[in-house]
Amino acid sequence: MEINNIIVTGRMYQELEKLAELDPKREYLFLPEAQVDPKHFDWADAYVAFKPTASFHFGSLKWVHALGAGVDSFLYKRAWNKDVMLTRTVGSFGRKIGEYSLSYILADLQRHDELQQHQIERQWLPSQRKLLQELNVVIFGTGTIGQEVARMLGAFGVTVYGISRSGASNGYFHKVFPMSEVHSCLGQADWVINTLPLTAETDRYFGMNLFAGMNGAGFINVGRGASVDDAALLQAIDQGQVRRAVLDVFREEPLPAQSPLWTHSGVVVTPHISAVTGLDEAVNGYLAVLEEIDQGQQRVSYAVDVSRGY
Amino acid sequence: MEINNIIVTGRMYQELEKLAELDPKREYLFLPEAQVDPKHFDWADAYVAFKPTASFHFGSLKWVHALGAGVDSFLYKRAWNKDVMLTRTVGSFGRKIGEYSLSYILADLQRHDELQQHQIERQWLPSQRKLLQELNVVIFGTGTIGQEVARMLGAFGVTVYGISRSGASNGYFHKVFPMSEVHSCLGQADWVINTLPLTAETDRYFGMNLFAGMNGAGFINVGRGASVDDAALLQAIDQGQVRRAVLDVFREEPLPAQSPLWTHSGVVVTPHISAVTGLDEAVNGYLAVLEEIDQGQQRVSYAVDVSRGY
Repeated sequence: MEINNIIVTGRMYQELEKLAELDPKREYLFLPEAQVDPKHFDWADAYVAFKPTASFHFGSLKWVHALGAGVDSFLYKRAWNKDVMLTRTVGSFGRKIGEYSLSYILADLQRHDELQQHQIERQWLPSQRKLLQELNVVIFGTGTIGQEVARMLGAFGVTVYGISRSGASNGYFHKVFPMSEVHSCLGQADWVINTLPLTAETDRYFGMNLFAGMNGAGFINVGRGASVDDAALLQAIDQGQVRRAVLDVFREEPLPAQSPLWTHSGVVVTPHISAVTGLDEAVNGYLAVLEEIDQGQQRVSYAVDVSRGY
Repeated sequence: MEINNIIVTGRMYQELEKLAELDPKREYLFLPEAQVDPKHFDWADAYVAFKPTASFHFGSLKWVHALGAGVDSFLYKRAWNKDVMLTRTVGSFGRKIGEYSLSYILADLQRHDELQQHQIERQWLPSQRKLLQELNVVIFGTGTIGQEVARMLGAFGVTVYGISRSGASNGYFHKVFPMSEVHSCLGQADWVINTLPLTAETDRYFGMNLFAGMNGAGFINVGRGASVDDAALLQAIDQGQVRRAVLDVFREEPLPAQSPLWTHSGVVVTPHISAVTGLDEAVNGYLAVLEEIDQGQQRVSYAVDVSRGY
């Protein structure tokens, strides 16, 4: 595959201009999304961005490189041209999401909010708290991100269950269940973490039925917002099936001002920051794939199986 | 050493009554501190408590067992009778203190407070944050607790320096410095954690001179409150040498209502909870030492070198 002309767009397009220096033999076009014109796709061999622009079409593209880990914006509810290769960025997202998740699990376990309230009231009220090793955590998604989160929690003695499509076992998890057997472990969970990609199967997957199987677990969503039925989640919190929710991703981002998620006392809202692609990560991920393409490698790293959708 | 009569007192005395069933061949006296009379010490061979009562004297005691890890209440600014053995409880304090410390380091790194404020204002303001592996942490005290905290942080790639009296190297730390060379690493610290015992050497050790060597580090005190000069700490926070303080221990506990620590915006106050002795820990720690005594073991586990003071 010969790559000569490349469109780079999205929130990082200016910082990524260094690619023109790092890779001087190719032609780059660095543009904000609104300035990417349909005719640019007839010129370009490759498109590098977090998501398709409104003007996106396959034109003469041979390769699309996603700057994030999720590729649903390219694949879900869209037709893909199977002659075009899709790759994604992996970087240190697992570690970032692991530290994000652990920070909220530990703050909860160590009762930061309660202690802060006591401090405001100048109340000295010692109490005992659990250790991480007493917790059960269920992670939905056993791919690179789910595995890294499982590894980090497992190092503290947390019992970590995985849920995947196949239920294939995996050394990072105490046990992996297929989605059809999710209720084997959900009721014991202290925390449930969603790392699933968005596909037809996971759209609104976290709904009334699933929440009904939880017994006061905390729920962390670092996967995709559209996998959650927000109304069902708020109801589950009010009924105590979910103790609290920590949400980093939303069906619509930025989260609209009128969303009840902003103000519910059982919900923590963060602005899609659990795994932000860093500039070095973006540059290195892109260049590594490009090098494999130049070498004519058969199976390129981080190539997405578009038929699977993630 | 023959142990027949035992006084058990302090906040756990009622829960510890189970010792009479677990160890039926000895005589136990379970009392609240105020009811321990000087004459009880003429009857008892052993004293089991967190600290000495006001009525405490050596009487016919052969053994004192501390239910906590710190023994300064028995040794510091008091005369000890060298014929009496002093032992302490170790349990899982290192792990507890590690999770306590990590919870505040991660909440800070993940900007929980800032994100909470943005949520209240319904502001969607994504930002990048550091990973733990980018941090330098200096731990004062390289004993069992300091080592376990170092191990936990090291597992995330944190660069952990230790400070000890001797500066003897230790596999849990990137490097250990003697107290005289503390300024070799203090200026680079993102966090400084005190786990030192209270002795004549560490009383008010964290004062103006030491804080002046920090460049905006966070300071966590899980050692002893008397090791810190509170006025110097507050000044160091106001001047930016210390970015924020997380204090679990205080010169006077409970922390008096008039202390400025309660209300300073750069200070988190928690009520000496980072390493609370659990009932099982107390029972098992005590019974393990008792068994070694019964067996006539020369060097009893968790025996304190009283000449050293910790």
